[in-house]
Amino acid sequence: MLSKNQIKFVNSLRQKKYREEHNLFIAEGAKIVPELLASGIKVKQVFATSAFLRQHQLDAAIERFEIKEAELERISTLMTPNEALALCEIPAYELDANALKDNLTLVLDEIKDPGNMGTIIRIADWFGIGNIVCSPTSVDVFNPKVVQATMGSIARIKIHFLELAAFIEEQKKVNAVPVFGALLEGESIYSKQLPSKGLIVIGNESKGISEELQQLITDRISIPSFSHFSQSGGEAESLNAAIATAIICSEFRRGQ
Amino acid sequence: MLSKNQIKFVNSLRQKKYREEHNLFIAEGAKIVPELLASGIKVKQVFATSAFLRQHQLDAAIERFEIKEAELERISTLMTPNEALALCEIPAYELDANALKDNLTLVLDEIKDPGNMGTIIRIADWFGIGNIVCSPTSVDVFNPKVVQATMGSIARIKIHFLELAAFIEEQKKVNAVPVFGALLEGESIYSKQLPSKGLIVIGNESKGISEELQQLITDRISIPSFSHFSQSGGEAESLNAAIATAIICSEFRRGQ
Repeated sequence: MLSKNQIKFVNSLRQKKYREEHNLFIAEGAKIVPELLASGIKVKQVFATSAFLRQHQLDAAIERFEIKEAELERISTLMTPNEALALCEIPAYELDANALKDNLTLVLDEIKDPGNMGTIIRIADWFGIGNIVCSPTSVDVFNPKVVQATMGSIARIKIHFLELAAFIEEQKKVNAVPVFGALLEGESIYSKQLPSKGLIVIGNESKGISEELQQLITDRISIPSFSHFSQSGGEAESLNAAIATAIICSEFRRGQ
Repeated sequence: MLSKNQIKFVNSLRQKKYREEHNLFIAEGAKIVPELLASGIKVKQVFATSAFLRQHQLDAAIERFEIKEAELERISTLMTPNEALALCEIPAYELDANALKDNLTLVLDEIKDPGNMGTIIRIADWFGIGNIVCSPTSVDVFNPKVVQATMGSIARIKIHFLELAAFIEEQKKVNAVPVFGALLEGESIYSKQLPSKGLIVIGNESKGISEELQQLITDRISIPSFSHFSQSGGEAESLNAAIATAIICSEFRRGQ
């Protein structure tokens, strides 16, 4: 049985200021909670149905609360609550400049939509991109909607919030990595030779890459449109930010 | 000034049964409404601010209602209403079997999420795939959330709702096209020779491609994961359906 204070506490974590105050975030569901339990993320509390708790061994350090579906509804952020909700410690990652040197890193310039952010984290995980650097103006990655959209990848990707211009300049100086950005008049990703290391800058959903960061791009790339193939009389103007990220990452990795 | 009946009528079109009854769908926003006005879609009514109406020439046959932002809020499906809302006729497309013969066509097996569906339509537009065939169990493409997620591409792509097994069998027999499906144990899309025609089957978000349709796939393909590159200690299990569609379409088109 959940107390009123517990319900209030869990629900407060939907807001960034309370997540920061308590250094906790919410993860939910019969698929995602077990992924977090098996990851390096520290799970502090689990609220779950008896069925879930029978099926999953929890470490003794984790506080567990067996609750009914109806109680889960009172703390869930999902439309359809799903067996378990976990409170997890927000991880603090050191940015290892050396690790970035020989790898691909995503740099997100003000991604605002939680679904896009979560999807991009999941894409990074699929394509083995271990670090993401976000502008401080990006949506918080521990927002419950982002966490859910990552489908567990939040536990595996190191995400950093930094001033991007300073970060990129530092990386160019110290590691001499190329800086890729999808821009108009960029070279087609299908014909350009793409290396296994470098920064890939992804712009905001409506504004694209900021003027300031555009100056720091060393390699302008673009995803060609084949819109004319369908003779539909018009042209698709753009791709969603997460979709563009997926196509670019696929293209970087396909030859490796 | 909007009447109560007008408000009620527009809001009723959020439901499929009223869209079907009146053969109308809603499209919104200062970017999407002009795209529909310029397309082959028949726009019947436009509710818009005076600023929007000054900037856009409307055909005389279109009923126009100049309204204030506050009134727009009462009929808008968006969190942030945006200058204009249009009621458009649902187009009826004939499936031209001949047109499919030499082109790529997407076949969607029960895509349920409106955001995914809209994004897939936008991807089809970008990659010049003029026809999409959906199972009758898929989300309605004239659902306002789908329309918004297409960013105008709904006006350019011909979408058909059909029983997929019969459709695929017919296409195999009449047009002898290959049928691609992303399945475990499929051949890597990065090494397989991909043609400029055929059906590409995309499965449901959680269940994938149904058993019945799997039997009809002629070419099993897969998107390789590079998850191990990041040494995060785990593996991304899957990609979102729209993301997988984007990567597959990109790979089909890149050599063309």
